[in-house]
Amino acid sequence: MNELSPVSRRSGGRAARVAARSAPLAENLRPIRPGLPGGQYKPLTEAGVKRIHEAALEALEVIGLSQAPESGVEIMTKAGAILGDDGRLRFPRALVEDMLAKAARNITLFGRDPKYDMHLSGTNTYFGTAGAAVHIVDVEKREYRESTSHDLLAASKLVHHLDNIHFFQRAMVCRDVTDNLLMDMNTLYACCAGTTKHVGTSFSDPSHVADGFDMLHMIAGGEDKWRARPFVSNSNCFVVPPMKFATESCQTMEHCIREGMPVLLLSAGQAGATAPAPLATAIVQAVAECLAGVVYVNAMSPGFPAIFGTWPFVSDLRTGAMSGGSGEQGLLTAGCAQMHQFYGLPGGAAGGMSDSKLPDMQAGWEQGILNVMAGLSGLNMIYESVGMHASLLGFCLESLVLGDDLLGQVQRCIRGIDVTEDSVSIETMKSVCLEGPGHYLGHNQTLEVMQTEYVYPVVANRSSPKEWVELGKPDLIQKAIERKNRILAEAAPSLIDAEADAAIRKRWEIYC
Amino acid sequence: MNELSPVSRRSGGRAARVAARSAPLAENLRPIRPGLPGGQYKPLTEAGVKRIHEAALEALEVIGLSQAPESGVEIMTKAGAILGDDGRLRFPRALVEDMLAKAARNITLFGRDPKYDMHLSGTNTYFGTAGAAVHIVDVEKREYRESTSHDLLAASKLVHHLDNIHFFQRAMVCRDVTDNLLMDMNTLYACCAGTTKHVGTSFSDPSHVADGFDMLHMIAGGEDKWRARPFVSNSNCFVVPPMKFATESCQTMEHCIREGMPVLLLSAGQAGATAPAPLATAIVQAVAECLAGVVYVNAMSPGFPAIFGTWPFVSDLRTGAMSGGSGEQGLLTAGCAQMHQFYGLPGGAAGGMSDSKLPDMQAGWEQGILNVMAGLSGLNMIYESVGMHASLLGFCLESLVLGDDLLGQVQRCIRGIDVTEDSVSIETMKSVCLEGPGHYLGHNQTLEVMQTEYVYPVVANRSSPKEWVELGKPDLIQKAIERKNRILAEAAPSLIDAEADAAIRKRWEIYC
Repeated sequence: MNELSPVSRRSGGRAARVAARSAPLAENLRPIRPGLPGGQYKPLTEAGVKRIHEAALEALEVIGLSQAPESGVEIMTKAGAILGDDGRLRFPRALVEDMLAKAARNITLFGRDPKYDMHLSGTNTYFGTAGAAVHIVDVEKREYRESTSHDLLAASKLVHHLDNIHFFQRAMVCRDVTDNLLMDMNTLYACCAGTTKHVGTSFSDPSHVADGFDMLHMIAGGEDKWRARPFVSNSNCFVVPPMKFATESCQTMEHCIREGMPVLLLSAGQAGATAPAPLATAIVQAVAECLAGVVYVNAMSPGFPAIFGTWPFVSDLRTGAMSGGSGEQGLLTAGCAQMHQFYGLPGGAAGGMSDSKLPDMQAGWEQGILNVMAGLSGLNMIYESVGMHASLLGFCLESLVLGDDLLGQVQRCIRGIDVTEDSVSIETMKSVCLEGPGHYLGHNQTLEVMQTEYVYPVVANRSSPKEWVELGKPDLIQKAIERKNRILAEAAPSLIDAEADAAIRKRWEIYC
Repeated sequence: MNELSPVSRRSGGRAARVAARSAPLAENLRPIRPGLPGGQYKPLTEAGVKRIHEAALEALEVIGLSQAPESGVEIMTKAGAILGDDGRLRFPRALVEDMLAKAARNITLFGRDPKYDMHLSGTNTYFGTAGAAVHIVDVEKREYRESTSHDLLAASKLVHHLDNIHFFQRAMVCRDVTDNLLMDMNTLYACCAGTTKHVGTSFSDPSHVADGFDMLHMIAGGEDKWRARPFVSNSNCFVVPPMKFATESCQTMEHCIREGMPVLLLSAGQAGATAPAPLATAIVQAVAECLAGVVYVNAMSPGFPAIFGTWPFVSDLRTGAMSGGSGEQGLLTAGCAQMHQFYGLPGGAAGGMSDSKLPDMQAGWEQGILNVMAGLSGLNMIYESVGMHASLLGFCLESLVLGDDLLGQVQRCIRGIDVTEDSVSIETMKSVCLEGPGHYLGHNQTLEVMQTEYVYPVVANRSSPKEWVELGKPDLIQKAIERKNRILAEAAPSLIDAEADAAIRKRWEIYC
């Protein structure tokens, strides 16, 4: 889908020219695409990066982590971690360095459709959803209500059809499903039924994992096919900051690894609450925790695909409540991206959340600033980049649709300024100024770059005040609702093979 | 003014603690302040910067600029520019280099109150308004109406009381004043009556300049006082891109220079219309034009304070209309900042405009993305950073108020991550994890950084969905209207000395 916004009524020749220029472009010529390399923005100096690394190593040696499951203690002590009398596992620097050397680099996160494969390498950037919102935002009623499996499926379908969103990680909780196992199964189903882009899920209990893989094998058409191209990763909150393993999540993680599912090593401390308040130390703690995860995963299965998930969040220190949309958050996320690049590991963090309850101007600047900082910093996986409101408590489908425009603009910024011999040649200037019409309108060079260098929003409005009045003063949210409804009306009921879909519905109660 | 948003009802002890922590902070301890150094973001490589510089020099040698006024031809040919038979002035590379060597560096733009002085040096960043909007946005009626001198005065008063906006350049046209001389006088009056921060104006005709200086001398309390601390700069659209001098604006500029008024050398081409469509070449042309301005100014008055005003704008190439809020605009502006730094000259460009007609989510992301890119690139003067809608055609007072929060967040991002021995020490982590409560809430370190490292919005809402409902679902725009009304109710009618104010009103008809 590559809709272009309808151009307002124009006279004949110009309208035709405009229409011709508005035709969709071949994939390889488009100005933006998944995986654009960032890295033009560096909030930390090289010395700062090394200093944070040193402090993280020190924290692992001196403080270590408590509460590893028995299996984890065995795996990690066998590799060289030291279990103290206080029950804490401590990690000698050499052990961390060994495991860093073994860790998977340049991994691919598969889509069910190969065209959505993501290559997490260098500073490549991919934008997607994530989170566990418990509400969906009803923009028409200005209301928060409990999110359901139907909402999750709708979000998944929207992401499938929004070009600038590259993966779909479970963004909200299916609160209509009261049984916990069935909730996990419905979550997995809703994500995979809506999109063939890469999916992220999060098992809520180790005892649910086996059922999960049964479903994934059914969707894939067999375990071998699943293992060849695992299209779902598991988001593991494997630590409870500060510096404690999350026992059950670790057990889940071990199971996922055995079944070939890439894992997101997620450390979600909150600066000023479960992580230190100074931004640099919050990064130190997140890095230390994720390094412990790297040791864990690679001691168990050397080179297993894992995403370095430093997700330090921010507290509003006046109240202790979380703030998702602050400038401090933008800095934490971008700083973490630099740490991932220092280790050469695929990394992810939280991108563009908003504290606002609605998709209003506050939401726009918070999501815009956070996403462009994350993208320009070259963060591989930019989670929670769209749709997320109320500091992660609410998900909004209209905001998701608007977020596609927002991310298109962000991705144009990541693409950057091409400085080639051609692009700085003054030949066109010369002919325009010395021989030509004195302007560049309609010049061949202008037409050439119209679609290869410029990005156009779909819902966002660029009309003049006069045209805007003529168009009936279109309201942004109304336009987002219309695009949402259009996509949902056209989307397939399920992108899971019909036979597998039926078998899944037979085995588990599916609510959506 | 440093209001903090009201905290929702809480129980005794906590409320008191929160209130204590919310007290205003001494200026030097605040996390953000005017002039924070950026430069962490570099859209161009060093080689790219040099390549653009070379192309600009080539354009000046080969293409040159037409339509200089006679006085300008005399000034520049005397310095070494060559007047061709085609009437174009061409600039040998050595001339440009000589004048660059003479050009003013590290200049100060004065406020009428010295505490608002701006030191344009290195990558110091200052945010303010600018533009010539012909409409004011009425957010309550969703309407565009003609802007007036009263609107301009209100905007000036608001900027005076909004901490994160550092200067006030004329942002809209006083359309209630039909006489052109009186329009310029009312513009100058409204700007200076509302704020003692640095003001930017733009004389619409060379014949108005003498009256302008008469008024400024009256406001300053004498010509000597004006010349000692010129608190108004003139925005000179001294070129009509591509590569033509704007004859009358050049005459105005010469007059301003003689009167000691700093000038903004403004090249406002529009990529794809009056400037080349490829971003790099649009920068080449803007740089070439501003270098011509540097020659002009320094040939006339070596070392005279001038701002390198590369303001390349963007066309929506589908329609040719201007797009102010695009990603392409963010790149052009940030790329220009790097060119200013290459020359070591004080520079300015257009920061955070929106194409949206209203302060909605689109406006938020456009203004957020553009401003954070401009700030992180280290642009000295970030013009049009707030209030600007409809691709420069509309100015919105409520958006200006919201922009103060937006810019607070942006400035927090520019401030960056402090990596000091203290901020990466793991001592606090150690005590919290090994001895302490297992969290950082209420820890001394947390309380210490609460106001020195964290920024809190005034109007933007961070409450939970539950609190939000309890607060009556506050609407962002309504809250902005309230803050606007509060500031305007408290602001002085005029910040011009009463006697001078009366004298001004006696000499010129003042509409506001």
